[in-house]
Amino acid sequence: MSKTEHILIIGAGLCGSMLALRLAQHQYNITLVEKRPDLRQAKLSAGRSINLAFSNRGLKAFKRVGLEDRVKALCIPMHGRMLHDQNSKTKLSKYSGRDGEYINSISRPGLNALLLDELENYPNVNVKFEMACHEVNLEQTSAEFELANGSSQSLEADYIFGTDGAGSAVRKAMQAKRDFLFSHSQDFLTHGYKELSFPPTKDGDYATEPNALHIWPRGENMIIALPNQDKSFTVTLFLAYEGGRDNFNNLTTPEAVSDYFKREYPDAFELMPRLTEEFFENPTAPLGTVRCNPWTYHNCLIMGDAAHAIVPFYGQGMNASFEDVVEFDDCLEATNFDLKASLEQFSRSRKANADAIADLALDNFHEMKAHTAQELFQQKREIELALEEEFPQQYFSKYSLVTFQEQVPYKTAMDRGRAQDQAILSLLKHQKLHQKQTREEQLHLIRNFTEQILKGEYIINS
Amino acid sequence: MSKTEHILIIGAGLCGSMLALRLAQHQYNITLVEKRPDLRQAKLSAGRSINLAFSNRGLKAFKRVGLEDRVKALCIPMHGRMLHDQNSKTKLSKYSGRDGEYINSISRPGLNALLLDELENYPNVNVKFEMACHEVNLEQTSAEFELANGSSQSLEADYIFGTDGAGSAVRKAMQAKRDFLFSHSQDFLTHGYKELSFPPTKDGDYATEPNALHIWPRGENMIIALPNQDKSFTVTLFLAYEGGRDNFNNLTTPEAVSDYFKREYPDAFELMPRLTEEFFENPTAPLGTVRCNPWTYHNCLIMGDAAHAIVPFYGQGMNASFEDVVEFDDCLEATNFDLKASLEQFSRSRKANADAIADLALDNFHEMKAHTAQELFQQKREIELALEEEFPQQYFSKYSLVTFQEQVPYKTAMDRGRAQDQAILSLLKHQKLHQKQTREEQLHLIRNFTEQILKGEYIINS
Repeated sequence: MSKTEHILIIGAGLCGSMLALRLAQHQYNITLVEKRPDLRQAKLSAGRSINLAFSNRGLKAFKRVGLEDRVKALCIPMHGRMLHDQNSKTKLSKYSGRDGEYINSISRPGLNALLLDELENYPNVNVKFEMACHEVNLEQTSAEFELANGSSQSLEADYIFGTDGAGSAVRKAMQAKRDFLFSHSQDFLTHGYKELSFPPTKDGDYATEPNALHIWPRGENMIIALPNQDKSFTVTLFLAYEGGRDNFNNLTTPEAVSDYFKREYPDAFELMPRLTEEFFENPTAPLGTVRCNPWTYHNCLIMGDAAHAIVPFYGQGMNASFEDVVEFDDCLEATNFDLKASLEQFSRSRKANADAIADLALDNFHEMKAHTAQELFQQKREIELALEEEFPQQYFSKYSLVTFQEQVPYKTAMDRGRAQDQAILSLLKHQKLHQKQTREEQLHLIRNFTEQILKGEYIINS
Repeated sequence: MSKTEHILIIGAGLCGSMLALRLAQHQYNITLVEKRPDLRQAKLSAGRSINLAFSNRGLKAFKRVGLEDRVKALCIPMHGRMLHDQNSKTKLSKYSGRDGEYINSISRPGLNALLLDELENYPNVNVKFEMACHEVNLEQTSAEFELANGSSQSLEADYIFGTDGAGSAVRKAMQAKRDFLFSHSQDFLTHGYKELSFPPTKDGDYATEPNALHIWPRGENMIIALPNQDKSFTVTLFLAYEGGRDNFNNLTTPEAVSDYFKREYPDAFELMPRLTEEFFENPTAPLGTVRCNPWTYHNCLIMGDAAHAIVPFYGQGMNASFEDVVEFDDCLEATNFDLKASLEQFSRSRKANADAIADLALDNFHEMKAHTAQELFQQKREIELALEEEFPQQYFSKYSLVTFQEQVPYKTAMDRGRAQDQAILSLLKHQKLHQKQTREEQLHLIRNFTEQILKGEYIINS
C-alpha cells in the first residue's frame, strides 16, 4: 500500500506535525521541515504561548491518528469561565449545561512533542529542524531553505504543504504571483497581548482554582489565566496599544504597571510576585487575522494558521488547525487518494468554515472583555445553561455548537448560534422571557424566533 | 499666504490631479509625478475604461475648485437603468423619483485632461510625466523614480501623498514595514471584465438611447453600456472566469463568443460589428477590492484607489476619490492647515465611509446582474420612485442616499439604505404593502419598520 508521491511539509508546529502523521499513516513519503530547533531539546523562547485551550475539534484529530489517550493525559479540564470583578469577587459561568462538556488547558510544547515523538515510529517520515524556508517555487514544487550554518539547501517534491504559520513563506509565494488571483488580508486589532504568570504557591499548589479559565473583564481590556501542569498559570494581558486611561504606550514604568494591576486586577496582582519584571522582559505581541483564497496553487496547499490565522478569543485556533487535517483526510478518502483533487476540494470546502471561526473569534473578544460582565449577558447564559441541562439533546448554545458539537461545521455553528443569541437577547429585552414560563415554553419561544431570524423573516406586528 | 511646505504627490490620475489642484489653491508647493505619458499627448491604451459614471460627490469637488461649469460640459446625463431582457424588450428604471437627479457618463481622459490643463495656471505646481515610482522611504519622505530613458531620479519632500491607484507603490511601502501594524486586504471577485463597444450608426448617431445606463442582467453575468460624446458606447462584459455554461475560460473562439452574445444579448449583438475582434484584442481584467488601515505613516498619506480600490458596480469609485479630496480639504480647514494633524484626522474619519462604499459596490454587483430583473426588486423600485416623487423631502432610496445626497456620509447612507431595503422587501413579502394604501400610509409603514431595524429591534408577534 506504500504510495509513490513524495510530500514536502513546511512547518513542524502543531498542524504540520499532525498532518505529517496522518499522511504517514496513509503510507506517503514525507519530508517535514521546521525552521526552529527541535523543541524537545531546546528551551522555549520567553513570551511564546505555553498553553492553549484544547477541545472537541482538536480531539477529533487525535482520535483519528490513534492518540486519544495520550493527549488526554496532557489535559487540565476547565469547566467554565471564572469571572473576577474589580472587588475580587468571583463567579463561575459554566461552558455547558451538559455533563462532560468542558475545555482543557494544554501545553503547546507538550502537545507538539507528543506528535514529533509519534512521527519517529514512521520510517516514511524524515523530520529536519533548523531549516528556514526563504523561497518557494510553486510551479516546480521546490523550496529553498537556509540552514543553521548559513548555507542553503533546496528540496523538491511532488506536493508541498505549507503549515508554516501566520507568517507563512508558502502563502507569501502565492501573494507574489501576478497571474494568479489570490485574495488575501491581514488585519490587526488595536490591542496587543503580553504573557505573564502566577507561580505555584509556597506549598507547591495552584495559586487559584485550576479547573477554570479565569477572566478579569474590564470593558476595553482584560487579563485571562489558564493552568499549567507544573501548578503555575499562564496569564495573558490584552490591552490597547493606545487610548483609554491605560495602554501599552503609557505603561512604561514599574510603578505604572503595578498601579494599573493593583487598581484593575487586585486579586491577580497578589498572585504575581514577578509582575513588573515579566512585564518588561516579555514582548508585546500584536493580534492579527489572516484570510486568503484560494489555498491551493499548482501542487501546493496552505493549511492551519498559514491559511487562516485567527485571534485567540474563542480558544479555537489550534483546534481549527487540527480539524483542517481531519477535513483534508476526508477529502483524500472522498477522492480515493487523488492528492490534486483533494487539494482543490479542501480549499473550496474549508474556506467558509475558516472564515466563520475567524469572525467568531473576533466577536468573542468583545464578549470576553466586556459582555461577560453584563447583566443581560449573564441572564442569557443562565437560561441557556438551564435549557442545556433540561433538554440536553435539543438545545445547544453558540458556545456549545462551536466548541462541543464537533460534527457541526463552524459556519453552521456561527449562523445558528448568532441567530439564537440575537433571539434570546431580543426576547429578554422585551420581557418576553420570564420566570413564570416553563423551560419548555422558553425553548419553543427561542427556537421559533431563531428559525425566523435564520430565514431572514421579521415578524411584523401591525 | 504662500506656504512653505513642499508636497510630493505620486500619481496624476483623477484623484492626484484634483488633490494637486486643491492644494495648489492653498498655496502649497507641489510636485505631481505620473508614471504614464501625458494623456493629452498620448493615445489611450486599448481596453482601459474610457468612460465612468460621474455624480454628486464628484461634482462637489469640482464645485470646490471652481470647475463646475467646465465639468458639466463633459457630462452625458443618464436618467436611469435601461434593462434589456433576453427577448430584447427594454424597460427604463429611473434612478430617482425627484427631478434633476441623474448620473452622468463622462470620459476619463477628458476629465483628467481638464484637471491637468487647469494645473498649468498654478506656478506652484510642477507636473512630471513618465516617472515610475519604484521605492518610497516613508520616514524620510523621499521616493525613487525610474525615468523613460531608464535612469533613476530621487525626490524629497515634507509630505508625500500616494494617489497612485490600486497597485500603489506608496501603499506597498507601508505593507513592507514590520514595526507598523498595517492591516490590508486585496479581494478578487470570481468574475473579470472586458471592454467592448457599440460604434455610432451609419448616420453618425447613437446606436441606442444615450441618456441611460444600459444593463443586460443575466443572473450570473451581464453586460452594461455607457454613452460617449463621440456617439459610441463603451460596453463592458462582466463574466465569471470559470463555472456556469459560459465563462472567460471557455469563450476561446470567435464562434463561441458570437454564439454567447447572440443567445444572451441578441439586441446588443446586432450593434457590435467588431465584437469578436474586440473580444480577443482587449484584455480581460480582474475586479478587486483593496482595503487597508491606517492610511498614514509618518508624513505620508494614501488616498483614492491607493487606499480603497473598489469594484465598479455602484459607479462610485471615481466619485469617492474626488470626495476624498473634499474631505481632506475639510480636515485642513479644521486643523488650521496643520498638515500632519490633517493626515491623521482624514485617515481616521474617512475609513468607515470608504469601507461602506466598498461594501455597497459589492452588493450592487449582485443587484445589477440578477436582482434588477426580479419581480420583487422591481416592485420595490416602483414604490420607492413613487415615494420620492410624492415626498421628495422625506423619502430617499438607498441609491439616492448614496448617489444624490452628497452631504450624507457613505456609512450613514449604507446603514439607512440597507435597513430600508430590508424593510420594504420584508413588507412586500408579507403582503403588508398593497395598492389599497395611500402613499402616505406606505411611507409611515416603511419608515417605522426601518427605524426598528436600525435600532436592532425585532418586533415580536406573540
